[in-house]
Amino acid sequence: MTNDQEVKGLIAPIRDDLTSGAAEIALQAISIFRNLVAESEHTSAAELKKLLVEIAKELVKAQPAMAPIFHLANNVLMATKDAKTTDEIIHKTGEALDKFEAQLCSSAAQIADHVFDLIPAGELVFAYSFSSTVVSSLLNARSQRKFFRAVCTEARPSEEGRKLASMLAAAGMEVIHTFDSAMGLILPQCRVAFMGCDCIARPGIVNKVGSWLLALACRELRIPLYALAGTEKFVTDERLFEFEDHMRPGEEVWPDAPSGVRVLNKQFELIPFEWIAGLVTERGILQGKDIDQYVSKLEVHEALKIEGALT
Amino acid sequence: MTNDQEVKGLIAPIRDDLTSGAAEIALQAISIFRNLVAESEHTSAAELKKLLVEIAKELVKAQPAMAPIFHLANNVLMATKDAKTTDEIIHKTGEALDKFEAQLCSSAAQIADHVFDLIPAGELVFAYSFSSTVVSSLLNARSQRKFFRAVCTEARPSEEGRKLASMLAAAGMEVIHTFDSAMGLILPQCRVAFMGCDCIARPGIVNKVGSWLLALACRELRIPLYALAGTEKFVTDERLFEFEDHMRPGEEVWPDAPSGVRVLNKQFELIPFEWIAGLVTERGILQGKDIDQYVSKLEVHEALKIEGALT
Repeated sequence: MTNDQEVKGLIAPIRDDLTSGAAEIALQAISIFRNLVAESEHTSAAELKKLLVEIAKELVKAQPAMAPIFHLANNVLMATKDAKTTDEIIHKTGEALDKFEAQLCSSAAQIADHVFDLIPAGELVFAYSFSSTVVSSLLNARSQRKFFRAVCTEARPSEEGRKLASMLAAAGMEVIHTFDSAMGLILPQCRVAFMGCDCIARPGIVNKVGSWLLALACRELRIPLYALAGTEKFVTDERLFEFEDHMRPGEEVWPDAPSGVRVLNKQFELIPFEWIAGLVTERGILQGKDIDQYVSKLEVHEALKIEGALT
Repeated sequence: MTNDQEVKGLIAPIRDDLTSGAAEIALQAISIFRNLVAESEHTSAAELKKLLVEIAKELVKAQPAMAPIFHLANNVLMATKDAKTTDEIIHKTGEALDKFEAQLCSSAAQIADHVFDLIPAGELVFAYSFSSTVVSSLLNARSQRKFFRAVCTEARPSEEGRKLASMLAAAGMEVIHTFDSAMGLILPQCRVAFMGCDCIARPGIVNKVGSWLLALACRELRIPLYALAGTEKFVTDERLFEFEDHMRPGEEVWPDAPSGVRVLNKQFELIPFEWIAGLVTERGILQGKDIDQYVSKLEVHEALKIEGALT
């Protein structure tokens, strides 16, 4: 596998996945890297490195708002940067993937522990969009015999809120579902709200469109809204704004819009830290003032640097 | 036509119309009364009165949030209350209908004149849900050579926002359309926002679900939001809350929801006066403090009084 078309073909399911959260998509990206190195024994070291760079770049391009994808790609490239032989590249890639996967899974488990304490028994709990971290946290609380009902909305246009409702209901949880604009009607009955997030830096939290309205409504109604995210979601302030490039076809919103109507389909938006009650990470619940130490001076592989960036 | 089933059949299109505004539906209700009296020459006075009462009650029940429907029904019943003969009832009904229709039309024209001054030329103008008053106001401004672009969202679940987009585009206006939860992304680019409304009293303005989030976002972003409504939208404080009865089937939101998921489909919600820039009526732009004089001690026909009401 050497040509651009094949790389793009591999990445296509990730680019077109509009209903999975960032952590879930990162697991899919790990599989892509794993399959690649499994088939690369007879590829030259130079060619394999070129291939890893191409895949890394295409992955980041496919989901520019999803920090774990960027970190995964960067970790693989940095780990294999000085490798000399094909065997060494395969080995270093495997190590980087294992480490990243283990981190994702252990983050999710620790976040779920923190979330357990935030869920008031017997109450309505709001959850927005789809985040595997939110799902695992709610199911963990339920499996530990904390009983509550979940409320979620469609999350147009991809309707990943229905995926959330279906998964929670399949696990035996009582779910109330409505359309997104009815948040104002149902939120006053909820005691806490949760959402995942795609990336975090000092300007705020990037998540699925609709999160801004949710956060504004929660602030107005004094309902604590928590964003759940492992620290693999942190990026530099500059990279945070890459989410703005993520425009999808208008046809996904309105397939047969009449001429004269331009249909806008953006996927992500920025929510100010001040509007949320906290960011639940594997290292505890963080506030805006705690962010600085996590937005580290990350070493970024040459291939993934942002063009025209200041540093 | 005498039996209950027939009356219900006549009203069904009004009950199931989820994409028309209150003023538009009132015009449909006028037609129903007109058709009835046109066929009633040979009906006894007592029977015709009974029929008018039944239709009036069913109309109000079909759209409990829509004030013009209530006023139309009440005006017909009050006008014919003391009529003795079939001819007299037919004549009084016709008069009441003509007067109401003329009022609706002249209100719309006067509101459009006020709205003209509120539209900044060359800017983006947000419009929510579907209101014939909003449509006629925007088209009037355009026909008077004020050029601007309109932004609207779907208005799930009935998607009457698409009806709005289609009508404006068909009239040659440039329209930007997106999904409801993307309000937070597009509103910052808009200079003014308009919505219709279904009824008004001192507690606030009742309109399609989603208006609360819109009003909250507009307040946050300091974008003036105007509700457009003729004074036929005013009701007593008590009748205002009738909108809470208007629950629709969950299948209209999610036809094949899995078991364990309860789907909530409410249609209307209350927006506080303080959140809007003004209520544009045929008598000018009103503020919350001006409301008292319009929430008059209206004489309500016995058949339309709210059960258990205080007065």
